[in-house]
Amino acid sequence: RETFIHLCNPHLEKMEEDILYHFALGTGTHDLPALFGDVKFVCVGGSPSRMKAFITYIADELGLGSPGSEHPNICAGTDRYAMYKVGPVLSVSHGMGIPSISIMLHELIKLLHHAKCSNVTIIRIGTSGGIGLEPGSVVITRQSVDATFKPQFEQVILGKTVIRSTDLDEQLAKELMQCSKEINEFNTVIGNTMCTLDFYEGQGRLDGAICLYTEEEKLQYLREAFDSGVRNIEMESSVFAAMCNLSGVKAAVVCVTLLNRLKGDQISSSHDVLVEYQQRPQKLVGYFIKKRLGKV
Amino acid sequence: RETFIHLCNPHLEKMEEDILYHFALGTGTHDLPALFGDVKFVCVGGSPSRMKAFITYIADELGLGSPGSEHPNICAGTDRYAMYKVGPVLSVSHGMGIPSISIMLHELIKLLHHAKCSNVTIIRIGTSGGIGLEPGSVVITRQSVDATFKPQFEQVILGKTVIRSTDLDEQLAKELMQCSKEINEFNTVIGNTMCTLDFYEGQGRLDGAICLYTEEEKLQYLREAFDSGVRNIEMESSVFAAMCNLSGVKAAVVCVTLLNRLKGDQISSSHDVLVEYQQRPQKLVGYFIKKRLGKV
Repeated sequence: RETFIHLCNPHLEKMEEDILYHFALGTGTHDLPALFGDVKFVCVGGSPSRMKAFITYIADELGLGSPGSEHPNICAGTDRYAMYKVGPVLSVSHGMGIPSISIMLHELIKLLHHAKCSNVTIIRIGTSGGIGLEPGSVVITRQSVDATFKPQFEQVILGKTVIRSTDLDEQLAKELMQCSKEINEFNTVIGNTMCTLDFYEGQGRLDGAICLYTEEEKLQYLREAFDSGVRNIEMESSVFAAMCNLSGVKAAVVCVTLLNRLKGDQISSSHDVLVEYQQRPQKLVGYFIKKRLGKV
Repeated sequence: RETFIHLCNPHLEKMEEDILYHFALGTGTHDLPALFGDVKFVCVGGSPSRMKAFITYIADELGLGSPGSEHPNICAGTDRYAMYKVGPVLSVSHGMGIPSISIMLHELIKLLHHAKCSNVTIIRIGTSGGIGLEPGSVVITRQSVDATFKPQFEQVILGKTVIRSTDLDEQLAKELMQCSKEINEFNTVIGNTMCTLDFYEGQGRLDGAICLYTEEEKLQYLREAFDSGVRNIEMESSVFAAMCNLSGVKAAVVCVTLLNRLKGDQISSSHDVLVEYQQRPQKLVGYFIKKRLGKV
């Protein structure tokens, strides 16, 4: 059974052309069904170079394209986002923070709709701060919660506050957890992910340019987060979950933790260690895609 | 009289080393006073390629560096932000949205502090949607207002909401307006700038993947914004104003309008027209810097 993208916008039907401005793509200039119609897996992450590395990795894993071949940036006409494709896998960068990923998701969801894609799974592979976990642990998000630990995303539309659900697909999270067990290379947990609007004050760090609270207040907040089920903190999962929900797309969030926030704020591991950590969500999701395609 | 950066964080003094993670710079690895001590003007904008173009432009205007010479990206160790420097001018990209610029500003303000910079002026040069202005008009921000037209920035710190002022330097705005009159090449106004957390629903667009309101409701909202003094909408000015305020740095926001939102939502001008529009804030701020340095 084919499930298509559910567009929650009656106005789009009336538009003759749709310019996906931040992708430098559009229905009037690009044959979106021909370019993207076969996409089944979309992986998104903050850093453009990491998303380029992912497409190279998945191409090798799936045996698509010759080894060492370059994968062109489909959004070369802009520097807002980078996008790569190989076979049924699309890899897109989203920058940092809710507003940045939200622009990308609006245009991605429209792109998948215009391209008539079906049965699409979207996974965010990212980095995060961990709470009470060894650095390098991977967290598969059960629920994305806000800074008061509620599983909701608050958005202002026409000046009024709207609350949206941040539920993620439970079955998909379990499937990913099973993949991690099969790989058996790093610690993986299912836990809640706190999504904040700021990296420093918003996450209780003591090392920003502005900090008006004490270390004890910070630790109390992080312990409350831990007690409520939060295992990591990042900056995109809530709007990601809310928008995928509304569009009827199965979605998951898989983030590696770069440090244990109960022990500090600065990301001080060596470059090589951080690079290896950042490959863990890619490995996990790469294995998941291979398994789904019957290639494991 | 020299005015230094005001750091609102007593914890920083106790740190032996400060890693500016998203710049791939740090006090332990870089001689920040030697590298940045002479900075007097910081220009920030969303797009890395635009901030690279700006440093090339300002180098030519100030007669610094040989024409056509490459300006290296100081943050080459990361792809989160790009940073360029020529003489007293620093040019830094900040990505899209409040969280993305907020991370950059925390690290930039600490960088300027560590480098012992004094009398620094920070100007955001960006793009925006206009309200009731001809596309290509430039708006110098009087006040940055939120989606309910209030001149404030709401932030969640340790789970509690904190309200901060978004005042900008009035004298600096007037000085920039005077510069625009002297250039006399494009329409410039001083007006309020609405700062939103979203480009589509948050700005009342009808062309996102999700839109649950009517065209009439959208237009009513934009007309209310106009009546309250708003002349353009973007996604970074509120936290920019709030953080510069708290750090005692004089700041301004200069954005070109790419379209008139009362007439539509899609950015459909030709590539060449948009490129020329985006050069206008650069021209204005370039002239301002030259004038301040006595080179006009």
